[in-house]
This record gives sequence, C-alpha cells and structure tokens, in this order.
Amino acid sequence: MTLFSSFDSAMMARALRLAEKGVYLARPNPRVGCVLTRDERVIGEGYHRVFGQAHAEIEALRQVDDSARGATAYVTLEPCAHQGKTGPCALALIEAGVTRVVCAMRDPNPRVDGGGFALLQDAGVQVDSGLMESEARALNPGFIKRMTQNLPRVTVKLAQSLDGRTAMASGESQWITGPAARLDVQRMRASSDAIMTGSGTFLADNPSLNVRSELWDKLDNQPDWDLFRQPLRVLIDRQGQANLAQKFFRIDSPIWWVTDSQKALTEQDLSHVTRLPWTEAVGIRGVLKQLADAQCNDVMVEAGSRLAGVLLQQGFVDELVIYQAAKIMGSTARPLVEWPMDKMEQAQPLKLLDCRHLGEDLRLRYQVGNESRSS
Amino acid sequence: MTLFSSFDSAMMARALRLAEKGVYLARPNPRVGCVLTRDERVIGEGYHRVFGQAHAEIEALRQVDDSARGATAYVTLEPCAHQGKTGPCALALIEAGVTRVVCAMRDPNPRVDGGGFALLQDAGVQVDSGLMESEARALNPGFIKRMTQNLPRVTVKLAQSLDGRTAMASGESQWITGPAARLDVQRMRASSDAIMTGSGTFLADNPSLNVRSELWDKLDNQPDWDLFRQPLRVLIDRQGQANLAQKFFRIDSPIWWVTDSQKALTEQDLSHVTRLPWTEAVGIRGVLKQLADAQCNDVMVEAGSRLAGVLLQQGFVDELVIYQAAKIMGSTARPLVEWPMDKMEQAQPLKLLDCRHLGEDLRLRYQVGNESRSS
Repeated sequence: MTLFSSFDSAMMARALRLAEKGVYLARPNPRVGCVLTRDERVIGEGYHRVFGQAHAEIEALRQVDDSARGATAYVTLEPCAHQGKTGPCALALIEAGVTRVVCAMRDPNPRVDGGGFALLQDAGVQVDSGLMESEARALNPGFIKRMTQNLPRVTVKLAQSLDGRTAMASGESQWITGPAARLDVQRMRASSDAIMTGSGTFLADNPSLNVRSELWDKLDNQPDWDLFRQPLRVLIDRQGQANLAQKFFRIDSPIWWVTDSQKALTEQDLSHVTRLPWTEAVGIRGVLKQLADAQCNDVMVEAGSRLAGVLLQQGFVDELVIYQAAKIMGSTARPLVEWPMDKMEQAQPLKLLDCRHLGEDLRLRYQVGNESRSS
Repeated sequence: MTLFSSFDSAMMARALRLAEKGVYLARPNPRVGCVLTRDERVIGEGYHRVFGQAHAEIEALRQVDDSARGATAYVTLEPCAHQGKTGPCALALIEAGVTRVVCAMRDPNPRVDGGGFALLQDAGVQVDSGLMESEARALNPGFIKRMTQNLPRVTVKLAQSLDGRTAMASGESQWITGPAARLDVQRMRASSDAIMTGSGTFLADNPSLNVRSELWDKLDNQPDWDLFRQPLRVLIDRQGQANLAQKFFRIDSPIWWVTDSQKALTEQDLSHVTRLPWTEAVGIRGVLKQLADAQCNDVMVEAGSRLAGVLLQQGFVDELVIYQAAKIMGSTARPLVEWPMDKMEQAQPLKLLDCRHLGEDLRLRYQVGNESRSS
C-alpha cells in the first residue's frame, strides 16, 4: 500500500478535473487527465481532448518548456503501452525523462491492463497506483464496463410526474418537464455514444434524438462543435412501424434500425441508416453486444414505459435518471415502467445517487440494484 | 412603511426561533415568541409553551429582573386584547411600562385583528408591525387558515415508490419507506391537531395513528410528554366497515367516527369515540368545517390513494408531503392518488417547497395549486 502525500492528492484531483473536460469529444476513448510536476511545481498539464488526437500525457509533455527530466506525472489512468491511433504514452513518458508516475487506476483495456506499468517499471520509473481510484472509476464507468464485460453501460432516462406517470393514456406527454430539465437531457445525449429508443416513443413523439447545435453554447465547457460526433441513434422497431420519412431518419447521422421489416432503404437517401435484423435469440442483449463491438461505452435509453420495463426486468440497466415534475398526471396515465409485480418482496431496489433541482423539476439519479452484478 | 434596524431583525429572528418551540404543546393556539430588550440588551424572552398557560409576552415579562419600564417587546404575533384563558397581553405590556412593541404580523383571529395594536397605541406605546411577516405567517399557516376561512389546513402525507405506487394491488404496503421517514411521520402527527384516515387504510393496515411516547425523546425539543394531548383521530367510514375491537378504537384518545353505521358504541368502553353522521350534503367539507369548529388548525391525512384522490380533486388539500422510496413497485401496484385524467392540461400543478434526504428515502413537500385560492 503506497502512502500518498497531500501534494500527490492535490495533483491527482487536478488531473481528474482536467479529465472531465474530455466528456463530449474523447468518447469512445476514456476521459483522462495528466499533470506533470517537478520539485512540487506544475510544469505541464493536459487531457485527452478529441478521439484520435493526442492522449493526456502527450498534451501535458507538449506544455513543458525545457525538459521533463526528473518530473513526476500524475495520470488518472494507466498510460497506454500499445500503438493505437497515437504512440504508446508509457514510452513517451520514459523518453521525456519522467522518473515517477502516479496513477489513479489500472487501465481495464485488455490491450493495456498493467502493460503500461510494466513498461515504465522496466525502464526504472517509479510507479505508484491507486490514488483516488474510485473517483477515477466514476469518470469512465461506461468504458470500464465495456472493457471488462463487453457490454455498454445503460442509462435509462425518463421524465415523470410526481405520481410516476410518463404520458397520458393517449400517449400525450409534451411537456412533462421544463426547459432546464430538457437542456440537461441534451447534455446527457452529448456525453453518450448511443441513444436508444423504441417504436412506441418514435410513433408518439416524432423525436429526433440528436444533439442540437443551438444548445452547445450553454454547455459548461464549450468544446469544438465541428469536432463533435452525434451519438449513434438506435431504434428498436421489430415490426417495422417506423415511417422512414420522419425527421428521425432525415437527420444525417448514423442510425441503427433494429427490425424484422424488409422495407427498402435504397429509394431514399438513407445511406446513414444500417438495418439490423431483430431475432428473439439475439434480443436486447445481442443489440447491446453489437453496440459494445461498435465501441459504445454509454448507451442512453430515451423510451417509454414499455422498453424501459423490458430493459429493467432483464437486468440490463445500470442507472436510472428520472426528471420528476411537480404535477400530478392522474391514475389513468401511463406508468413509469411496464412491470407487473404482486408482492412487496418483488420490488426492484434502487440506490439514490443524487438529487438536484432543475428549474421546477427534480433530477433523481439511481443506481439499479443489479449494478453490483453487472459491473 | 416602517424601517427596521438590523437589531430589530435580529431580535425578531430570535423571537421566531422561540415561537417554534411551541409546536407540540401550544396547539390549537398559535406558536408565538417574544423577546424584551432595553438599551439594545435582552432583558427577557419567552414563548407560548402550553395551551391554556401563559402567553409568550407574559413568559418574557416574568424573566425581567427589575422593571420593563422603557423596554421594547418583539413579538411574532399581535398581542391579544381579549380575556381568554389568560388576561390580555397588550394590557400586561402596557402595565409593565413597555414603550415600543415590534410585531411580525397582525393577529388574524377576529377577536383580536388590530385590537391589540389599538389598545397599545391608545396607551401611548409605539407599535411597529410587519417585520419578517412572511416568516411569522409560515409558523402558523393552519391557525391563519382557520381564523380567516373557518377551515383547517389539510396536509396529505403519502409514502410512495419512485414509480408513484402506494401499495401492491393486494393492499400490501408495509414498509415502503425506512425508519427515518417513519420517525418524521411521528413528528408530523405530533404537530397536527387531527389525523384523518379512511376505511380502506383502516382495513388494510390496522393503524393506530397516535403519537408514540417511545419516539418522544427523539424529538428536537423535548417538550413535556405529560402535557401532550394526542391529536384527534378521524376515521371516514361511511359504510361502517370498521371493526370496533381493533387497536385504533382501543387506544383511549379522542376519535371521530364519521359513518352512517348505527353500530352500538355502548356495550364497549368507547366513551372516547364520537359518532358523526356522514351525509352527502355535509361531505368532506362538512367534516372539515366541524374540525375547524373544534379548533383544529392542522389536519394531517394518512390515507390511501382513494381518500387522497377525493380530497385533491375537491380542492381541500393545502400541502402534499411525499416520502419517496428508492424502489420500483411496478405497474400493477396502486397509484399515488385515484384521479382519472385524459389530457396534459388537466394535470394538477404543484409547487415544490423542499426536498430532504431521510435515510434512503426522500421527503418532498409540495404546495398544492389551489393554495393561493384557499389561503
């Protein structure tokens, strides 16, 4: 067990804050931050800004005026040891003369998983790992789940009234929540790799499920809009009820249309739409596996009570984000999730993660009880 | 418009904190606090501790060592001008030689309503009213409603799951929330004048609806248990389904049994039970009127979704207190309130007053949209 100094903790906290800035553009890579110090002074810092561009360590090394010889690197994740889109960061740190590397956590990526540490140690660099590990894990829960389970992390977002209703019986649901909650949904979308919905929501709400550029300037951290890649949109539509002329399909960013329908995609300009066959054997798990293979860490589900119910009952949900409005929609309105239960002992336990006021609404984040099993 | 000094504000804030201490024993009198100062030094303070005993002003005057001549009195409510269970406080202040009285609000009691101010001013005392008035009104919302509308303030308490369910379809509901929430319910009961329930809850839960002495030592403010009067328990049981042998009836504190049943009360020792006839013409409004006539300021409703739905639909509810558990009870469980609606525009608007963590649960307090109309 390494004992870390309070200076070490302060530097790692700084690196964690830097890492957060990668939330919109680094995906599907993990969010990583790095601070370089010498004689307890910061000489460089950086974070992984954009997928395919320099990693955090390289960004930090670029800031160093003269030399990083004898420096300490604080990194929120184990430096990579493999040649990816950029060279191995462990090697770059060694070549720059860094003599100590403090890490928050080992990289769960099987292509790294200790390999970065080994490379550093073989070169005589002191490696201390485990500082603020839980904070570092919380930065990249989707990446960690995909790396360790080959499944994406699934967050189901629902808007409900105080009495747990997501739409009137007719399907009418616009708008349950206010502008602050809807802006927060845009933020969630922008930090997700894929947005999943079902045919019920598609037919009732005619959603676009993309991230709007006019909302971009309200984001905390003004990342470059031109470098932003819209999350993949996934429509679960087994019976092929979707009208391909609707705006969901007209927006030119990647779509997976999961369906048994043989409707032709060719006569229209739908080259951004990939048709995935739905089969009972494949089911939701199969779709999620394919999303993991397509490097999706975080899947956000924006659906109605039916698809949300299926996902919860089958144990695929890691987190529930509930936007709860201060109103009563009544006992004939639609439930939060379609899920019949008879006894109290069948109730699905949740863990409240946080509660925040958003205008007149509340945002409640819950970890779903199967989290411990699935991550 | 009187300009108050920061010393005035500090003293009134002190008087308001004192007033709060009367929450369990002063009812159905209002909660009132008083601070006496001379030359900007506190010379006495007090609050209305127990119904029928000394008012706040008298308690404060008793603390003064030599004389209150030339003193200023800070009182959260206009001093009374009438002979009630105690002498008129306005007169006591005059006789003690107080030369200035600062009040937060006029007494809405028609027997006072400016009469105390007039008495003081006629005697040459300077009266400044309106300092921290909204805070003072928030101390006694039930008293104010009863004085101005001859109706008690109605707070409906419900425990629900995240998905807005108050019981399984079978009626099973113990326990939705945890110990911290249940302790808070005891506190709510102890500060209410009456607890109302319906036959559905009576039959399903076999409740006692009294305040437990073993919970008393967990209250913030350790008032004298021997002086505590249990709130009146009101059972709405039109068809007389209640079994008089159940513990609700065996507990020897006042009960109103609102029913059309002619079941005999005499053969058992049920002298604490008053039978009130239910008639359509009288209805809930009639029961509430009678509760106001019986000096009930605050009525707490601990019922199921049916009675809660009736009260809400008829516009009798001032506040909703929801204990929300971190679990999903499913779409076949009972709703928060029985209230059919078809369109979003029919939704009942609420105003979130506060949100607090109680163990694993949340306590959400909402003002009901008709508050502005009814108070």
